[in-house]
Amino acid sequence: MPRMEITLDSPLDMHLHLRDGDMLRLVAPLSADFAGAVIMPNLVPPVTGAAALQAYSERIDTAMGGIPFTRLMTLFFKSYSAAELESARALPEFFGIKLYPAGITTNSEGGLADMAAAAPTLHLMEDMGIPLLVHGESHGFVMDREAEFLPIYRRLAQRFPKLRICMEHITTTAALHLLEEHENLCATVTLQHLLITLDDVVGGSMQPHLFCKPIAKREEDRAALLRAALSGHPRLMFGSDSAPHPQHKKECCGCAAGVFTAPLALPRLAALFAEHGAADKLQDFVSGNACRLYHLHPVPRRITLRDTPMRIPAAYRSYGQRVVPMHAGETLSWSIVPTAAG
Amino acid sequence: MPRMEITLDSPLDMHLHLRDGDMLRLVAPLSADFAGAVIMPNLVPPVTGAAALQAYSERIDTAMGGIPFTRLMTLFFKSYSAAELESARALPEFFGIKLYPAGITTNSEGGLADMAAAAPTLHLMEDMGIPLLVHGESHGFVMDREAEFLPIYRRLAQRFPKLRICMEHITTTAALHLLEEHENLCATVTLQHLLITLDDVVGGSMQPHLFCKPIAKREEDRAALLRAALSGHPRLMFGSDSAPHPQHKKECCGCAAGVFTAPLALPRLAALFAEHGAADKLQDFVSGNACRLYHLHPVPRRITLRDTPMRIPAAYRSYGQRVVPMHAGETLSWSIVPTAAG
Repeated sequence: MPRMEITLDSPLDMHLHLRDGDMLRLVAPLSADFAGAVIMPNLVPPVTGAAALQAYSERIDTAMGGIPFTRLMTLFFKSYSAAELESARALPEFFGIKLYPAGITTNSEGGLADMAAAAPTLHLMEDMGIPLLVHGESHGFVMDREAEFLPIYRRLAQRFPKLRICMEHITTTAALHLLEEHENLCATVTLQHLLITLDDVVGGSMQPHLFCKPIAKREEDRAALLRAALSGHPRLMFGSDSAPHPQHKKECCGCAAGVFTAPLALPRLAALFAEHGAADKLQDFVSGNACRLYHLHPVPRRITLRDTPMRIPAAYRSYGQRVVPMHAGETLSWSIVPTAAG
Repeated sequence: MPRMEITLDSPLDMHLHLRDGDMLRLVAPLSADFAGAVIMPNLVPPVTGAAALQAYSERIDTAMGGIPFTRLMTLFFKSYSAAELESARALPEFFGIKLYPAGITTNSEGGLADMAAAAPTLHLMEDMGIPLLVHGESHGFVMDREAEFLPIYRRLAQRFPKLRICMEHITTTAALHLLEEHENLCATVTLQHLLITLDDVVGGSMQPHLFCKPIAKREEDRAALLRAALSGHPRLMFGSDSAPHPQHKKECCGCAAGVFTAPLALPRLAALFAEHGAADKLQDFVSGNACRLYHLHPVPRRITLRDTPMRIPAAYRSYGQRVVPMHAGETLSWSIVPTAAG
């Protein structure tokens, strides 16, 4: 029987939460369908120096258990001196700096309250070629937060024209429009924001495992993001924002924000691109654009995806941790072809 | 020390879910701060005939355990003959007919799919002076559902000018504007829609106990609803839509819609009206408007509220049921003054 297949070279997840401790030990190997990832620094306390970054990178390497994985490590944004930035840049795994407007998302209470105070560090980053990654949400009404932040992106792009600025996990048509305005802006988009809207989160019953920040928006936003991804937009990259939380912190009052997609992102993306006749655009979305924009050379990894169904488990557990993925208990129409070694 | 007090005569809850069986036994006495209520008919199966209505009314009376309580009973909308409506109207507790657009809310799968098919019954109701109560939401995007339904309200109000049409649990400024257009429209509003927005439901962490249908909207909507209530709008009535679900159906994936407010609605409303200097408007909001619009004569009950704090329990339980109220574990600034008998 003829099968559809997509072969990808060194796919990258440009926005990944691996956490720490037992949760890291559980989710690191589950995130290794990719050849590498941009690792978020919002630990408790956040990663704010070269030594902490290197130590975290080594803990990730240990948790990967021998799987080759390109760790694109980030610092949590604060005011940094040139010397501090130099010592981070000296590390081969250093990638960039992630800026959280204070208090917006998980473990970001130490984020930036005053954009003006950031200018000296941003000038240094621009001069030194260090990318800036931004969680771009205001403190306004939940459905307006991304749109309200766009003027700040615009100001950053104008004031720091040589700074590479990534709008992380964009969710709106308006953000896509802004992307067209400035060549120094790029963006990541998650799997879930290509698939769901607020209706999936709270339109029927309430679905904590689809609750994330930024929250899913309207159908017209979802459709525009998907069109941009399928069309091979050269500055749009896949970043899962895969964000594991223990099951008991998702299924309770006060459920934490985050969708865990790492173990299923590539098969689900393959199915999505294939069903829209855009299989040839997937390589750029999950690797090519990122490698070109950031001059990356991830570890070589060839992965083949095929339209053979795979069942997503109800939960992943190990080390006393239990995490429920997106599509838990469902069957995806595509899966990864096991390698001879695997 | 001087105390603030508000005394109310026979407060009414114009939209209440009492459920059935053990849940009814738990929540009926907890809902009896009010002298009476409009009781929703969305049981499984729904209440669609005089005999079922009378039997449900008697079960409620039993569950009240001797507390005098005016039961304003409703039928679930379907096509009814004149004879069927006559037999319902012959019952002293019959109040009106509740229309659910099919599938919108809890246990409403039997609701109305085709508004045109409703015309004969609506004509009969108009001729016989039977009020129509409507859950007015479209099947569209969750934040637009009420606004999208407003043209149907407008058409109903124009086509059936003598029909008393109540827009249940309104949540938007747009619904308030429509209320001004047609004298035969009135509306209920819940406690939670005077207090919260979507930000409280999913803006920080996810809060299942604030999740209801219609979902809470924007701050400008909340503020407009509160202004209308505080100003003594003559066709706006309190209807709690207090909707108990077992705790395990709220704190899980797929949390059911509904906020349980019955046991705390009056103290919380008293605090709200008092803090806005509108204590004199509360009587009309919780009883006067409804009695005038619907010619009601509820059982006499005098209730005094005072600015003495009361603690809301984490949950109410009895008969194997456990329900978490709004404001669980919090302290309200007002409470009900116990009567000599109580």
